[in-house]
Amino acid sequence: MSKSIAVLKFGGSSVKSIGRMQHVAKIIDQWRQSQLTLVVVSAMGDTTDYLVKLASQCSTEPDRRELDLLLSTGEQVSITLLSMILREMGIPARSFTASQIGIFTESVYSKARIVDIKTDNIMKGFQDHDVLVVAGFQGVTADGDITTLGRGGSDTTAVALAAAVNATTCDIYTDVNGIYTADPNLIPKARLLGQVSYEEVVEMARLGAQVVHPRAVELARQYNVLLRVRNTFKPHCEGTTIDGGENMEIYRSVSGVAIDKDQARVAILDVPDKPGIAGTITQALADNHIVIDMIMQAFHPTIGMNNLTFTVHQSDLNQTIKTLEQLKAQLGAADVLADPDIAKVSIIGAGLAGQPGIAAKLFTTLGSGGVNIKMIASSEMKLTCVVNKADSEKAARLIHDAFELETTPSKGSLTF
Amino acid sequence: MSKSIAVLKFGGSSVKSIGRMQHVAKIIDQWRQSQLTLVVVSAMGDTTDYLVKLASQCSTEPDRRELDLLLSTGEQVSITLLSMILREMGIPARSFTASQIGIFTESVYSKARIVDIKTDNIMKGFQDHDVLVVAGFQGVTADGDITTLGRGGSDTTAVALAAAVNATTCDIYTDVNGIYTADPNLIPKARLLGQVSYEEVVEMARLGAQVVHPRAVELARQYNVLLRVRNTFKPHCEGTTIDGGENMEIYRSVSGVAIDKDQARVAILDVPDKPGIAGTITQALADNHIVIDMIMQAFHPTIGMNNLTFTVHQSDLNQTIKTLEQLKAQLGAADVLADPDIAKVSIIGAGLAGQPGIAAKLFTTLGSGGVNIKMIASSEMKLTCVVNKADSEKAARLIHDAFELETTPSKGSLTF
Repeated sequence: MSKSIAVLKFGGSSVKSIGRMQHVAKIIDQWRQSQLTLVVVSAMGDTTDYLVKLASQCSTEPDRRELDLLLSTGEQVSITLLSMILREMGIPARSFTASQIGIFTESVYSKARIVDIKTDNIMKGFQDHDVLVVAGFQGVTADGDITTLGRGGSDTTAVALAAAVNATTCDIYTDVNGIYTADPNLIPKARLLGQVSYEEVVEMARLGAQVVHPRAVELARQYNVLLRVRNTFKPHCEGTTIDGGENMEIYRSVSGVAIDKDQARVAILDVPDKPGIAGTITQALADNHIVIDMIMQAFHPTIGMNNLTFTVHQSDLNQTIKTLEQLKAQLGAADVLADPDIAKVSIIGAGLAGQPGIAAKLFTTLGSGGVNIKMIASSEMKLTCVVNKADSEKAARLIHDAFELETTPSKGSLTF
Repeated sequence: MSKSIAVLKFGGSSVKSIGRMQHVAKIIDQWRQSQLTLVVVSAMGDTTDYLVKLASQCSTEPDRRELDLLLSTGEQVSITLLSMILREMGIPARSFTASQIGIFTESVYSKARIVDIKTDNIMKGFQDHDVLVVAGFQGVTADGDITTLGRGGSDTTAVALAAAVNATTCDIYTDVNGIYTADPNLIPKARLLGQVSYEEVVEMARLGAQVVHPRAVELARQYNVLLRVRNTFKPHCEGTTIDGGENMEIYRSVSGVAIDKDQARVAILDVPDKPGIAGTITQALADNHIVIDMIMQAFHPTIGMNNLTFTVHQSDLNQTIKTLEQLKAQLGAADVLADPDIAKVSIIGAGLAGQPGIAAKLFTTLGSGGVNIKMIASSEMKLTCVVNKADSEKAARLIHDAFELETTPSKGSLTF
C-alpha cells in the first residue's frame, strides 16, 4: 500500500445530528483526496446518557456486560449513518464495529483496556474503500463479548488505531479550536497554543481543562503518535499539535494556567503524633473510594500534634467528613474542618522544573494582587495554589498577564 | 443436559416499553421454573421504522450493508434491557446478539436467509443461566458482516433456534389471542382456533390475516417445530397451536374466512389470439416487479379474441395500468380496464380439497345473500371469490354463519 493513513476522530457533538454528520463528511472528503482515511466516531450527541438512563430504569445496578453491549449500539448507529452519508456523496466508505475490526480488550466491562488491534480487516477494507469508519469507545474480548473503554474511550480508540496502522497523524476533531493558555471563557486574552507536549496536556486535562482525554494522550506519548486537536466547525484552523516536544517552543516555561473550582479543602486537627497517622487516614479514605490530592502534614513540635490537610473533589466532601469524624476518636484528634469555597489555580509548563524564579514570580503576582494563597503544591510540570474560590478567576488573569501568555514567545528568549 | 429447552418469541409491541418488558420478564420467569428458556425479542415498538427514517435522511438509497448494521442495533438494545430486568429479578439471564450466538446467513443484506446456527454458545450459556435472550431479525455472514432477515425475521429466528436446539415448543407471543376463524374486529362471532395446520396458517397469512409470518411457519413445517401463538397480555390463554395436523380437528373442512381489501382487478380486453400473449403480458409485469394473482384467460371463439383478467395489490395498480397501456398497441388489444373497488374473500381449510360440496355451499351462500361474485380461484386449501369491496364484510359474515365457524366442530362429524 503506497498511500499513508490519517486517523480522524469526531466526538459526540460533531456527529450530534444528520446535518452535522454531513458537515463532517465534507471534512473527511478533503482528507481522503490525499490519504487513506480512518475515521473514529462517538455516539450521536447525548445518546450514551440516554441509554444509561434506560438501563437505570431496568435495574438499580445494571449488569456491566449487558450495559456495555447496550452502550455499544450508540456508536454502531453513528458509524452506519456517517458511512451512508459518505457513500451518498460518492465516497467509497464502509463502517466497522470494534468487533468487526478486532479491537481486543481485557474482559473488564465499562472500563476495558485495549490489549490488541488486528489490522488485517483495516488493510483489506482500504483495498476497496477510501474511508473506513470505526466505532469508538468499544472493544471485544477474546470470547466475543462487547466491552466499552470508559471515559475518553473514543479518543483512546483513535490513538490506538493510529499506533496500530502507523498513521501519519491523529486529528481529534472537537468543538473548540484547540488547547489554550487558559480557559477563553474566563480569560478572553487566552491564546491558542500551536504546540504542547503530551505531558503538559495530561497535566492540563487533570486540572479540568479537558480537551483530549489524558488516557488517550498517555497512549499517544507511549506510541509516539502525533496528536492534533482541531475544531470541527472551523476546519481551516490549524488547532493544537501535541507531540513529544522535539519541535516545541522550548523556551516557553509556562504553557498555560488552569482553574479547578470543583475542589474542597479538608483538615483534621491536633492529631497526637504517632507513627502511621497519615497512613491510617488515607487508607480509610481509599476504602471509601475517595481520591485525595495536595496532602500536607504539619507537625507542631511544641504541642506534639499534627495537622493533616488535603483537597478532595467536591462530590466526595460529605463522605470525607463522615469518614474523618469516625476516625477522630480513634486517632485522638481535636477537630475536622472543611472548606468548600476553594479553587485550585495552576500553572503548567514543560520547562517549569528547575526554574525557581517561576514560583517566586507566581507567588509575588498573587500576593501583590491581593490573592491569599492557602496551600501550595508543586510537581515536575505544575505549580498549584489553593485560593478562595471567589479569587480564582482574578488569580488566573493576574498570572496570564504576568507571564504574558497572550503573546507567542520568540524562540531563544525566556518569557520572564 | 437434562432439562428441555423452550423457545419464546416476543414481538415489538410486547417489548415496546420498560413496563412491558417487566411484564414479559414475569412470563419468562414462569417458563424458566421448569425449562431452560431461550427468548427471542424484536426491537422495541417502532424502533426499526425510526432507524429506517434516519437512514433515509442520510441517503436516497442507503447502502444495504450499512442499513443492516444500523437496524441490528434495535434488537441489541432490547436484549440488553430485558436481560437487565431479568437479572434485577434475580433470574440468571444473559443476552446474545446473532453474531455472538452464531446465527449464520448468506451474504445478502435486508433479506438474508439463515444457513446455519451454532449451538455451542447456547449450550455453554445454559450452564450458568436459566434464560438466554437472543436478538431476533439479525444474522451474521461468515465474514462477520451483520445481516437482517427481512419481514418476519424475528419469527424466523425463533423457529430456526427451536429447530437447532430441538426445543419442546416455540411460543410466539404477540398482541392477539391466537388465530381466529375470521378477523374478530369484523366478525364478533369469530372463534379462536385451538389448533391449525402449518399449511392453513400460511394460506391465512398470505390473505392478510397475518399473526405469524408465513416464512417462519414454512420453516416450522420443514423442521416439524411445534409452534404456538399466544397473547403477551393474556398469558393464561392457551392460544393457537400450529402443527403438522396429526392431532388436528380433521373433520373441520373450513378453518376460517379471510378478507383482503388491498386488491384491484385489472383486465386487458380483446387481445387477438396469438401464441404467447399471456407470457408477454406477465413478463412485462414481472419486469416491473408486479406480482399478479388469480390470472384468468378467456377466449371468445366467435371473434377470435382473448380477455386476460387478474388481480394485483392496490399499490401496484398504477404501474400495472401504465405497463399494460404500453403493451396495448404491440398486442393489438382493444382496452385496459381497472377496478380498484374489489376485495378477495377466501375460505381456508386443510380438508377443503376434494369436497366439491364446499364450493357449492360457498357460492350459494353468497348468491342468496345478494353478493355478486366477480372472479373465482381455488387451490388445495383455499377458495377465493372476488367481490365488490363494499360487499366483502357482509360476505365474510354470511360465510362464517353458513359454515358455523363459531362452533367447535365435534370430532367424527362433518360440519356441513
